[in-house]
Amino acid sequence: MPSATPSDIPATGLQLHSTVKAGGSLELSLVEVDIPELGENDVLVRVGAAPINPSDMGLMFGPADMATARQGGSAERPTVTAEIPEHLMKSVAARVDQSLACGNEGAGIVVAAGASDAAQAMLGRTVAALGGSMYAEYRTVPVGFCLPLPEGTTPEQGASCFVNPLTALGMTETMKLEGHTALVHTAAASNLGQMLVKLCAADGIPLVNIVRKPEQVEILRGLGAKHVVDSSDDNFRSDLVDALAETGATLAFDATGGGKLASRILTAMESALSRGAAFSRYGSDTHKQVYLYGGLERTPTTLDRNFGMAWGVGGWLLPPFLQRIGPEAGERLRERVAAEITTVFASQYTRRVSLADALKLENVAAYGRQATGEKTLVTP
Amino acid sequence: MPSATPSDIPATGLQLHSTVKAGGSLELSLVEVDIPELGENDVLVRVGAAPINPSDMGLMFGPADMATARQGGSAERPTVTAEIPEHLMKSVAARVDQSLACGNEGAGIVVAAGASDAAQAMLGRTVAALGGSMYAEYRTVPVGFCLPLPEGTTPEQGASCFVNPLTALGMTETMKLEGHTALVHTAAASNLGQMLVKLCAADGIPLVNIVRKPEQVEILRGLGAKHVVDSSDDNFRSDLVDALAETGATLAFDATGGGKLASRILTAMESALSRGAAFSRYGSDTHKQVYLYGGLERTPTTLDRNFGMAWGVGGWLLPPFLQRIGPEAGERLRERVAAEITTVFASQYTRRVSLADALKLENVAAYGRQATGEKTLVTP
Repeated sequence: MPSATPSDIPATGLQLHSTVKAGGSLELSLVEVDIPELGENDVLVRVGAAPINPSDMGLMFGPADMATARQGGSAERPTVTAEIPEHLMKSVAARVDQSLACGNEGAGIVVAAGASDAAQAMLGRTVAALGGSMYAEYRTVPVGFCLPLPEGTTPEQGASCFVNPLTALGMTETMKLEGHTALVHTAAASNLGQMLVKLCAADGIPLVNIVRKPEQVEILRGLGAKHVVDSSDDNFRSDLVDALAETGATLAFDATGGGKLASRILTAMESALSRGAAFSRYGSDTHKQVYLYGGLERTPTTLDRNFGMAWGVGGWLLPPFLQRIGPEAGERLRERVAAEITTVFASQYTRRVSLADALKLENVAAYGRQATGEKTLVTP
Repeated sequence: MPSATPSDIPATGLQLHSTVKAGGSLELSLVEVDIPELGENDVLVRVGAAPINPSDMGLMFGPADMATARQGGSAERPTVTAEIPEHLMKSVAARVDQSLACGNEGAGIVVAAGASDAAQAMLGRTVAALGGSMYAEYRTVPVGFCLPLPEGTTPEQGASCFVNPLTALGMTETMKLEGHTALVHTAAASNLGQMLVKLCAADGIPLVNIVRKPEQVEILRGLGAKHVVDSSDDNFRSDLVDALAETGATLAFDATGGGKLASRILTAMESALSRGAAFSRYGSDTHKQVYLYGGLERTPTTLDRNFGMAWGVGGWLLPPFLQRIGPEAGERLRERVAAEITTVFASQYTRRVSLADALKLENVAAYGRQATGEKTLVTP
């Protein structure tokens, strides 16, 4: 296959890798890899920016105890090593001693392209990609994986085109598909939560935001959110029932997963539905649903079942949702994200790090604090 | 409206009623009520037999503490009175001081009929009805509520035509609707569980039965059940995974509701699905579902969430299921039940009581033991 590699493309590039060692530790490091020859339909992206999402952290950190993390290597090639508790090693048996490249999504400039017309058409454009291995100087991807961004969009603006925007759209689309008319979202001060506030405002969807601290109420009110309830507040229960009664929300997306929050939401929905309704032994016959899409709380999920019989709780992930709606509907969602990437789907970052700085301990410690709105961008 | 009431139909009949008293008690009693004049499309059924189902017990006993039950009244007109814990009174506020007739379903002979052709055609026939107020000497029902039984069927044979048979069919139909190919059932030694064993055998559906005692394993094996696992056995977990791997069951109906059983089933399904599969951080992408259709365990439902992301838990009730499939599909199910009421859908009873005996304390105490296969028939 011919390829059109300009002479200024280096032969190798750095990637951020994660390795589970057979001895019971996890190591993060920068690895220099060859840049492969491009196939006909491939493009080479010089990565400009790639976010650290909660969904990246499983691959990066596995089950390692990050309290044991220690710095190693040099300033240009730092490493981070942490212990994995012995009983958790079997959960990562399949990846022992494999050096795995991290970073689900990112954006950059196409600096080289394969021979096909489709690939050549991307030369010089800013594109986003959900390709994996995006914490890297360069990433080769099939042209079909690229989302070309509108003229003038920077890699930083386009870095988070997939995971959060498509998850937010997945929530509103699931709502419509399953016959609900309003939403509840927990851990609502997160980057995703803030995006959902803007999306629901744009689309006229009533949204009940549940946060865990008073200052998070202010963040969301500042974005124009109408219904924000604070689970640390004494009036949480009645505030939630009021907001549910006003919005008619019967579908929630819960990022916390564990504990009693899902149960409390279902109970509050049932209270809102039964306001002024006649007595029914089996409760309201309106279906109430909570999808758990994260696991910020690692404790078991506890359901009190004091919310009638018309309810469901289940796991929710983006890839099966995209499969459910099919490739054409998915393409429409991606096109909307590209068109509105600097408005509705814009992400805010609180930290920008180079590949080497991404492995400095003080930065690594921040990656787990995303539910409170912290968000790191890797700029290779 | 003319009605065709033969002279041997009495003017009144006895019914079994339940009343929550404002003072904080619940009273069961026999009440003599007028037999109303028949409308054009009504028939009068002399009730021959009516089962006491778990779904009757909410109306009969409410939240009363049956350990406090005491006998009253006379031998012919006994009463049972029990205390309701004060904090539970608000859950029955809507029924205070209302004398409510009990008994969801039953069967009997049509002894009088309204003037319409449809009603007249039922005269003398044995019919089953899901009409409420069936623990009674007589019950007037619209002819459309009657399920005429095949020639030669006795009221005892036809007493349980609706709740258990339609629930068993609801399980197998839900399985087909939602794309599963095999079932798991808990509290499987119950009358419903035994019926499900016969139904699944007749329809070639692989069924994993979960019971709680060794002697219940024997009951189900005696009916020809292939997969019976005992949750009290040390090998429960591995036996369950084996049975799930062999049957491919990814849908369970759980009568216990509370505790960890639903979670253990989902974990075992995930283990069965991942046998020999490649490592996936989010687990198998095959959807695993548990429907809770009862609440034998009143404790909260606890989910360990160690079964990937493709899962759901929810409430399941017969009436919404029948609504989901629509009246024509429901009619086909009812016709099948009538045709097979003495074979697949035959119920076994361990106790037969008259209306008066139904209110004897020693019998009342047995109504709660249905998960172990006890089943009482009221023969008015």
